[in-house]
Amino acid sequence: MILLDGKKLSGKILLELKEEITGMGKKLRLAVVVVGENPVVRKFIEQKKKFGESIGIDVRIYPFDEKITTNELRKRMSEIVHEEKNTGVIIQLPLPSQINTQYILNSITPEKDVDVLSSRALGNFVSGKSQIMPPVAGAIRALLEEYGIDYKNKNIVIVGAGNLVGKPVALWRLYEKVTFGVVRSNTQNPQEFLKYADIIISGVGRPKFITGDMVKEGVVVIDAGTSESEGKLVGDVDFDSVAPKASFITPVPGGVGPVTVAILFKNLFTLAKK
Amino acid sequence: MILLDGKKLSGKILLELKEEITGMGKKLRLAVVVVGENPVVRKFIEQKKKFGESIGIDVRIYPFDEKITTNELRKRMSEIVHEEKNTGVIIQLPLPSQINTQYILNSITPEKDVDVLSSRALGNFVSGKSQIMPPVAGAIRALLEEYGIDYKNKNIVIVGAGNLVGKPVALWRLYEKVTFGVVRSNTQNPQEFLKYADIIISGVGRPKFITGDMVKEGVVVIDAGTSESEGKLVGDVDFDSVAPKASFITPVPGGVGPVTVAILFKNLFTLAKK
Repeated sequence: MILLDGKKLSGKILLELKEEITGMGKKLRLAVVVVGENPVVRKFIEQKKKFGESIGIDVRIYPFDEKITTNELRKRMSEIVHEEKNTGVIIQLPLPSQINTQYILNSITPEKDVDVLSSRALGNFVSGKSQIMPPVAGAIRALLEEYGIDYKNKNIVIVGAGNLVGKPVALWRLYEKVTFGVVRSNTQNPQEFLKYADIIISGVGRPKFITGDMVKEGVVVIDAGTSESEGKLVGDVDFDSVAPKASFITPVPGGVGPVTVAILFKNLFTLAKK
Repeated sequence: MILLDGKKLSGKILLELKEEITGMGKKLRLAVVVVGENPVVRKFIEQKKKFGESIGIDVRIYPFDEKITTNELRKRMSEIVHEEKNTGVIIQLPLPSQINTQYILNSITPEKDVDVLSSRALGNFVSGKSQIMPPVAGAIRALLEEYGIDYKNKNIVIVGAGNLVGKPVALWRLYEKVTFGVVRSNTQNPQEFLKYADIIISGVGRPKFITGDMVKEGVVVIDAGTSESEGKLVGDVDFDSVAPKASFITPVPGGVGPVTVAILFKNLFTLAKK
């Protein structure tokens, strides 16, 4: 069993990126829109800030009150997106329930949409016109390639179909010649699908959803789930029972997460270079 | 075994549509862009023309030489799309190999894109903002609903992932809470997936790709494949061996095809109404 070391890969990507950004001679800035307060979210944002600054990218937080209306936020978004110094804009999800999330996401123009979440950026992505990938999908690809894992001729099962993990990964897989399945948290007998999976990519957000008895010997396990359990970040995979059967597996934390942040900044660079 | 009668459903949809269009008092016109000559394509277009005219929708063909360049076609597309009388515009696919197909498709504005194939229309669809569905996916949903087949809590396997069938159907399924798999023409042992399918939706374009030994008893089979064999339109399913095991099955022709054309006109109406 080999651990897919996301922290190491993240460092490698950031280092390469730092050189490229230095050579570019243009100041990059990521605007992060945050609505409300939440300790887990704050930790994610701190990580982005730290990573960004380590490679010379400014990360500017735009905090808003959790009671803000959709119209007010959309107006403010427009200003943030049109601010020339912001070369990329992201919104920390989820937004409070009174907000029309997709309407807010759509205020980000494709050339600043490093998360690939606006309708226009998604449309470019699914029609093969996008220069960048949704960060989680990009991170998973980077991890598989770093460890020389063939994912093009394998059966892939995606667990969960949320906007940040399952959907973008499924969209990515849909556009290459691979066999894949999507299993949900409400799928009856998910093991019927999982036991045929050469590669499992999970982002359902349920601790210990996938256990050792559900997977086949030699499986590659990518755990992009994020839940909180007793103040700690945990994934979807019961590591102790799954790891002994896996050929490769990501730890949580230290797997997909840090690579996703690195790819976010890589996307920022790719779009700014244009 | 019950035949899913697409011809009958198509007639029903068109009849309802005719009433609505008459009540609308606005003249609708579908522009069909055709590059080159091909007897199978000509048959499809004739069917669209006939269906459209039966409900008072003009169908105007714009024929182009098969040697046309991408730039020239894009220029002409712009004129066709901006012609006010054209309330919807479609391009007969596939286009000749010298043409950048997505670039041409992207000339269609979302409010006239009845086929949902431009990047912007696709982006609206995958982000849940679209009022219409890609016609084949809409036709499959209409057939399932017409026959009272529950598709929301079933395992669905999609065979093939082309732009006209597999991709839009997978995108549609991705956005509802269902379990689904995508199998390709190059998947090894597709029966491993197919035998768990409650519903099979196929659009791979290979005659007799799916045979009776690959499916389970009681399966629902939707055959949206279109190939030509000895001058006849044939699907992906070996009807003779699959039908005895199926609870519901589409014939080819007379299954998904005619419903798809009806949904195309329904999309035209929905967009024009706005």
